[in-house]
Formats: sequence, C-alpha cells, structure tokens
Amino acid sequence: MTLTAPPPTEVPASPARGLVCRNCGATFGLVAEHACAQCFGPLEVDYDPERMRAVTREQIEAGPQNIWRYAGLLPVGQDPADRVSLDPGLTPLVRADRLAAELGITGGLWVKDDSANPTHSFKDRVVSLAATAARGLGYAKIAAASTGNLANSVAAHAARAGLPSYVFIPADLEPGKVVQSAVYGQTLVAVDGSYDDVNRLTSELAETDEFEDTAFVNQNVRPYYAEGSKTMGYEIAEQLGWRIPAQVVIPMASGSLLTKVDKAFRELVAAGIAEDTPWRVFGAQSAGCDPIATAFDNGWDVVKPVKSTGIAKSLNIGNPADGPYALDAIRRTGGAVGRVGDEQIVQGIRDLARTTGVFAETAGGVTVAVLRQLVEDGRLDPAQETVVLNTGEGLKTLDPLTPVVGPTHRIDPSLRSARAAGLVG
Amino acid sequence: MTLTAPPPTEVPASPARGLVCRNCGATFGLVAEHACAQCFGPLEVDYDPERMRAVTREQIEAGPQNIWRYAGLLPVGQDPADRVSLDPGLTPLVRADRLAAELGITGGLWVKDDSANPTHSFKDRVVSLAATAARGLGYAKIAAASTGNLANSVAAHAARAGLPSYVFIPADLEPGKVVQSAVYGQTLVAVDGSYDDVNRLTSELAETDEFEDTAFVNQNVRPYYAEGSKTMGYEIAEQLGWRIPAQVVIPMASGSLLTKVDKAFRELVAAGIAEDTPWRVFGAQSAGCDPIATAFDNGWDVVKPVKSTGIAKSLNIGNPADGPYALDAIRRTGGAVGRVGDEQIVQGIRDLARTTGVFAETAGGVTVAVLRQLVEDGRLDPAQETVVLNTGEGLKTLDPLTPVVGPTHRIDPSLRSARAAGLVG
Repeated sequence: MTLTAPPPTEVPASPARGLVCRNCGATFGLVAEHACAQCFGPLEVDYDPERMRAVTREQIEAGPQNIWRYAGLLPVGQDPADRVSLDPGLTPLVRADRLAAELGITGGLWVKDDSANPTHSFKDRVVSLAATAARGLGYAKIAAASTGNLANSVAAHAARAGLPSYVFIPADLEPGKVVQSAVYGQTLVAVDGSYDDVNRLTSELAETDEFEDTAFVNQNVRPYYAEGSKTMGYEIAEQLGWRIPAQVVIPMASGSLLTKVDKAFRELVAAGIAEDTPWRVFGAQSAGCDPIATAFDNGWDVVKPVKSTGIAKSLNIGNPADGPYALDAIRRTGGAVGRVGDEQIVQGIRDLARTTGVFAETAGGVTVAVLRQLVEDGRLDPAQETVVLNTGEGLKTLDPLTPVVGPTHRIDPSLRSARAAGLVG
Repeated sequence: MTLTAPPPTEVPASPARGLVCRNCGATFGLVAEHACAQCFGPLEVDYDPERMRAVTREQIEAGPQNIWRYAGLLPVGQDPADRVSLDPGLTPLVRADRLAAELGITGGLWVKDDSANPTHSFKDRVVSLAATAARGLGYAKIAAASTGNLANSVAAHAARAGLPSYVFIPADLEPGKVVQSAVYGQTLVAVDGSYDDVNRLTSELAETDEFEDTAFVNQNVRPYYAEGSKTMGYEIAEQLGWRIPAQVVIPMASGSLLTKVDKAFRELVAAGIAEDTPWRVFGAQSAGCDPIATAFDNGWDVVKPVKSTGIAKSLNIGNPADGPYALDAIRRTGGAVGRVGDEQIVQGIRDLARTTGVFAETAGGVTVAVLRQLVEDGRLDPAQETVVLNTGEGLKTLDPLTPVVGPTHRIDPSLRSARAAGLVG
C-alpha cells in the first residue's frame, strides 16, 4: 500500500512448489505447517529451479523499490493485490570507510542498514511474507511471540491491513519496544517469563480452538515467514552491482537470518543472476546468549539450550530453532562465530554511530563488536570486501546508552557561560 | 555514500544564480548569508527559470532513490562527489484508507512518512543541503540550534562525513533525542533555556572568532538549508504520478516547511513538470505554541512571539522566522490553520498508528489531529485528495504515550493464566 515506484507490468508466477523437510526431505503441499509430519524436522519452501532461472536482473530492477521486486524468488505476494505488507526493504547499503580505516579493513566495508525499514528492523521483511501467506492460507488473524522487533512489526502490519493481531512479549522488554507495539491499538500480552517461555506458551495457544483461525507468524507459517530474510541477501548483492561480497557478518538469535542470507546467495548463483564467487558467513552472538557460538567452538552439530541474559534482548533466544542449520552454513562457507559482552556491545553501537552516522540497536552493536573481534583474531580477512548487518534501530534500545552518552557541555544561554565552558575564548 | 541505484549518467548544472531578499528583492551572489544587507529581510535562493525548465520527469526518474534525484531543482549537490549527505528522501507515501474512512474523507488520503529518513525525521533533507552548501562555501565545521530532530541529523551527517559538529539543544529535550544526538560522538551542548534562547545564543556564537569556520545550518547557510524541504513537495507530486494534491496538511514550527512545499508545487508547474491544478496548504500547530495560528485567526500579517509549552517540542518555536511567509502561502492558496491540545495530539498519534501502522512523533500527532479538526469544522473538503505530513518518528517522543498505552493483558507463561485473562476459553 506504499507507492514508491510504478508497479511491474506483469505478475510473475510463484516459484514455490511445496514445502520440504530440511531433515528427511519429505515433501508437502503449500500448507500451514512448520514441522514434518514424518520426522518433526523443520519444513522450508521448495522451489522449482526452472521458474527461478526465468527471473532476470532486468525484471528485478524494473520492480518496486522494496522487497517485492524479488517476488519471482519468493513463495507468495506475486500479485500486489495479495500482499499484506508495509512494503519494507531496499534499505541503504552504506559505505563505511571511516569504520574500515579504524578496524584496518582494506577490502571495503559496508553496513546493510535495516533500521530504515517501516518499523525499523529487519522483521518487517519476514512479517510481510508471513502476513501475506497467512491471508492466502485463509487465516483471519495474525500473532507472534516476540522479543520486541517482531511485536512492533506484527502490530503495525495488522494495523495497516485492519487485521486483528495478538502479540506476546516478555514483560521485561525495553520500554520503547513495549510502547511501539502497544500504540497500534492491537492486542498485546505481556508474559512474565523469558522469550523461550513465551514461545512455548504460543505453541500451546496455537493448538486451542480460539486460535484455530490465527497464523502465528514464526510458528505455523514459519516456512513462508523465514523466506523474507532472503531479501536482505538479494539486496546486498544487487546493491553491490549483482556481486556477492566475500564476507558477511550476521547477528544470530534463532540463526534463521544467517541461513537465509546464505541461501539467497546460493539462489542468485543457481538462477544465473549473480556470479559464483566464494563467500563466507560469520555469526555474531552476545556472551549473554551464545549457544550457537559454543556449539561452533566445540565442533558440535547440535546446539545446547542456554538461559539468556544481557542487554542484546532481541538476540536472547536460548534455544535457537535454526542453530544447527546456521552452523552448517558457517562451516560450509569457512566462516566463524564471535561472541561479545555487554560493554563491547555498547562500544560497537558507539563505534558504528561515530564513524557512519548509523544508530544501531544492541543487536547491531553485537555485530559491529564481533566484526572488530574477528579482524583482531585474524578469522576475518581485512583485505576482502565485507558487509556487516544492522538489523534494528538504536532508538529502541536506549537504556544501555543512557549511562554512558550525553551532552558534552551544559551551559546557560549566554556567551559568558559558553566562554566558561571553553566553547569560545 | 549510500548505494541504492545507479548514479545518473550526467551531472546537471545548478539552477541557482544567487540569493534574493524575500522582503526587498535585492540580489546577492551564492554566499553564506541569511539576512539582506539592505533591509535585513530573509534571503532565499534565486533560480534561473530557464535551467529549471530544462529538467524533465524522465531525468528525475532516472536519478537515485533519494532527494538527489531532484538535483536539477536544488542549489547544490549536482555532482555526487560534492555531497555531504545521508542520502535521505523518497520516503513512503502511504495510502491511508482506514483513517480516511474514520474521518469521512472520500477524496483519498495519503500520509507522507518522513520517519523513514536515515535519522527518522524530515530534517535529514535540509541538513543534507546545508552540509553540502557548507563544504562548498569552504566551512570546516557544521553547527545547529535544535529542538532535537535537527540535532540528531546534524550529528549523524557530521559523523558519516568525519566533519566536526556543534549541536546546541534545550536541556529539557526528550531523552531519546538527547541520547540519539550524543551517540554520534560529536560536541553536544545542553543549554538551560528554551529553543528561542538557544537560537539567540547560537546567533551570538556565530559572530565569534572560534566559530568563523562554522556553518550554522539554520542560520548562516539557511537559504540552502531551507531548500531541502522542497524535496518533500516534489516527492509527493512524483509519487502521485506527477499530480499535485488538492490539499496538504503541514506542521508548522518556523513555518519554513509549509512555504517550501508550496514553493515546490509552484516550481513543478513553472518548470512544466506537473500540471497546474489548484492546491491548498493547511498549517498545523499545537495549542501550546500557536503564534501562526493566532495571526491567521486574527487576520494579522505579522506573527507575535509566544512562550511555548506542551508536548510537541519539535514544533515549539515561539518566534517563527517564516511565520509571515507561511501565512502568505496559506491565504494565497485558500488554506487554513488549526491548533490542537496535548490530549488531541496523543490521540492523533494513536489514530494514525492504529489505522496505518505509521508511528509518528508528537509533531505528526499534531498534524493528524488538526486534519480531523479541519474536516470536522468544514474548512478541509473531504471530497478532495488530501496529503498529511508525518515529519518524525514516534520512538523519539515516547513520554506522552507511556501513561496511556501499554499491554492489554499481563499473564504467566501458562495456558491457565491465558484462560484466566480471557484469551482462551
């Protein structure tokens, strides 16, 4: 419903032909399930490679200035009339020369800044896919368990479309995220517990009669939801002139975003849209919630759940659903995982803001601090082109900054006071 | 420095030929002055109409996805290498059918959502022009007096460009705006006084030796700065398919934005880019700071300064520099001015969020509440196409909302608790 460019002249067909189990390979129709009926493995969208190969750079470039320009590579939303969307995406890819110079990166550094999305996080991408799929599958309501950004996005999508929504959040979220979720006038349920507790509760609620007509965006329509993250990978490649960057540093909560950026690159290569140059994906976690980092360090294939703490609340998923798949992508591409503590996270936010003018939320601070760590310990090659993802907006997580940043001077409105403060001689 | 589209193939010449006094018509070169040397009237950029007529829709549409697509109609920044910019603009024009239905607007209603800009307010437009002009004029630093949004934008622009900046804010600003301005690591001076006090102080500082090499974006380079606001008018027309809307509702602080949206429409018509259809501009103020509204109601040509109060701090300019020119534009086009109190402002924020998914700061609440008022008192025609401007982001002004919005339910993470709260039977 946002008008930023003329609509494409023809509606491409959906390339999706069903769902496939990532564990056992069993295939299903395009249904509202996220777990395999055979082995309980996670389902993902299965595409017809022929239809994806029919998509061209020119088709994409002629599309709207948002995620729907990639409709030919997505499971739903080919027809604009079907979309339930705030039309996110095509967020800036910001050249970060000043940060690169500080870190000693000589191969080029970019920040993909998803704080520019409508509700100021990358979650608008996945919710636009989930809400569109939900309507197509006949659901009357949407819902989510969320650490905040998803809550904002689901409530805003529901408000624009006039759909009822139910959002469940841990009661101790950052005040900004609570108010932002509540202002849209939808149902907002604060739950006294962790994100993992909230997630368990919504899994139970999804089975009740009252929620039979409700799509839980990251549960029963998760296969469609997760595909929204691919658009971040598509955009990075397109904005680099249809080139895949050598290194990408990605924050990990469930691990899904990292797997989907990698998948986006693989799809662009398979479809003949981008050249097959090598890339490595790096994961970033906070020390307060580092189950994937621990599994990576120990060479495990499975991820052991942890109890999460620390300021990077949007990454605080102690039992990450896509952890094993994230590990696969990191190991297959030759990447690595870093973890950083709260002080480093705050420093990461400040470093990014000071050198690029981009104000990231704590998750972005994690990613920038991990980038620094990976350069310092030699696991990331400073001579190769690198993209770092900022997935959210600093205004949502002010609390950790309030004690450490503020005015540099305080004066009366007089030259005399300015002089006393050393601003003039 | 943001890559969102291929750069235009040729660099258009600047259409600016000098500065002209809006009061006495005296002309000057493209210098760093904002007041006429003859009569102290305000200076504005004087364009060569021939050069503006050479600009075409096709040229604009082939340009980047930001304000610089209009470089042929702006005083500076024609060459991308000259720009000091976060590359703001081309923010969404959101169709607001649900809000229109509630208000009884049948002619079509749109929200121009400038919270999508890099620092989440329309100020990025003016700062990009001012900072670019400042560098072109040989200044080494940039500075501003600000009610918050301008502070954010100046500090972020300075951070990205690696330019020193000095930002002066009233000490009682919203915490979000203070932290957001401070996080960029630039000089931030909190002044114990009102915005008008801060503004007076920076006028004095601009005359000191220490600030001789400093461009005060809304003072000595104000003529260039102010032109940035025109891009909001250009975008509205372009996004409507090169059609000027019949009615536009615009918040007024200094009054500059309103005059520039009107000027943008006049320029598009004069340049042959848009058809000459009638339009009316409406001004919105808060009851706590309503000097232009009072002048309008009383039929005055001059605006009497007031002491400002109330929650819409970004509009709290008690002595609005462009007030008389805003009155001119409103009267010439047959518009009107509305004013609303704090409760209506909060309701305006909630109405917009609930019906469109756009979360506005208090200034946007003022504009939406005034829209409602103008429809109710018959001064705005509900049968005509209307655009309402949201100039900033709700996350920056959470305080007025915190007491009135929040979770609708609070529960333990159990079905039993969900049942007790009435969420399931």
